[in-house]
Amino acid sequence: MSNGLIVSISGPSGVGKGTVIGKLREMLPDSRSSISVTSRAPRGTEQDGVEYYFRSREEFERLIAEGEIIEYDEYVGNYYGTPLTPLLRMSRGGQNVLLDLTVAGSLALKEKFDETVTIFLLPPSMEELRNRLEGRGTETGEVIDKRMAQAQGEIADAPKFDYVVTNRQVEQAAEEIAAIMLAEACRYKRRSEAVTTLLEE
Amino acid sequence: MSNGLIVSISGPSGVGKGTVIGKLREMLPDSRSSISVTSRAPRGTEQDGVEYYFRSREEFERLIAEGEIIEYDEYVGNYYGTPLTPLLRMSRGGQNVLLDLTVAGSLALKEKFDETVTIFLLPPSMEELRNRLEGRGTETGEVIDKRMAQAQGEIADAPKFDYVVTNRQVEQAAEEIAAIMLAEACRYKRRSEAVTTLLEE
Repeated sequence: MSNGLIVSISGPSGVGKGTVIGKLREMLPDSRSSISVTSRAPRGTEQDGVEYYFRSREEFERLIAEGEIIEYDEYVGNYYGTPLTPLLRMSRGGQNVLLDLTVAGSLALKEKFDETVTIFLLPPSMEELRNRLEGRGTETGEVIDKRMAQAQGEIADAPKFDYVVTNRQVEQAAEEIAAIMLAEACRYKRRSEAVTTLLEE
Repeated sequence: MSNGLIVSISGPSGVGKGTVIGKLREMLPDSRSSISVTSRAPRGTEQDGVEYYFRSREEFERLIAEGEIIEYDEYVGNYYGTPLTPLLRMSRGGQNVLLDLTVAGSLALKEKFDETVTIFLLPPSMEELRNRLEGRGTETGEVIDKRMAQAQGEIADAPKFDYVVTNRQVEQAAEEIAAIMLAEACRYKRRSEAVTTLLEE
């Protein structure tokens, strides 16, 4: 059995990444998500390895030091991060894994694991990006200006990604990402077994 | 405007390449085919640059010597070949070009023009390939044995192709090739203009 794909999708805040990934998950119900690791305590019925991997602060810091955390953030005094090993395990089990990472996170993962398929989601225009950010109605003009400046910096990193998809329309963007995944599964390097089998017949 | 794709599809005799390409052309009516060049004289209403490019034997041999002919064959005393320049012209005009080439032809084109997307069409099994060759009912057992040996040699070159598609079912194989074309159009190198435009806004 060949490895599942590891597909990492990034894009600036406001581009509609969550919505596109949601649509994509509907289209590809067999794709898996990553489970984050956190240093916060489990709540209620939360189980280790289901909602999150729960680790102590010290363990989390050791995982960072070992290069096991692709990206992480601190929120209300707790770490939240994306661990590398479970992704590789799912992929080796033949499952496609879909990741929603920051631009820096996608690039770090690609650096660690070259087989990663990286996709950058672009807005149709900077004006449309601003409209979408303003449309949320939750952020001040100052925050929006900051996000726009950040978007500019992130888009400058798009050339480091394998693919670029413009989110004009959610359904179409999700279809393009699904096509990329189907195509990547047809790459010779991922289908070499089919060839070997024929030659051995 | 970005260049159209140049997509070259190869596979052993009997794999069903013609049928898959026919289905693909129905799905992608905007894709163009290459026009062959021949040393035979035009017949009836045939026009240069429509059915074929008509060239003299001497001119054809000069084109071969100049590396302008990707692949050619001689049939009943006349040359038939695939010229390079018209493909590049169609691609630069933004049109996708679909080519049906021999294995050697696809590899020669990739060598000359690295942007070519090469796809190898595989049979589901060697047994099924033999069934399909026998099913034609037009070839002797000896010819079929020869084609099977040739197929084995061609499949050994599949690792030199970008993508491998197994023709289990025509519609599905054509859909995989269409997905490859959509994905290739999303590669950063082909969408760099979208990024530049955003950064200049």
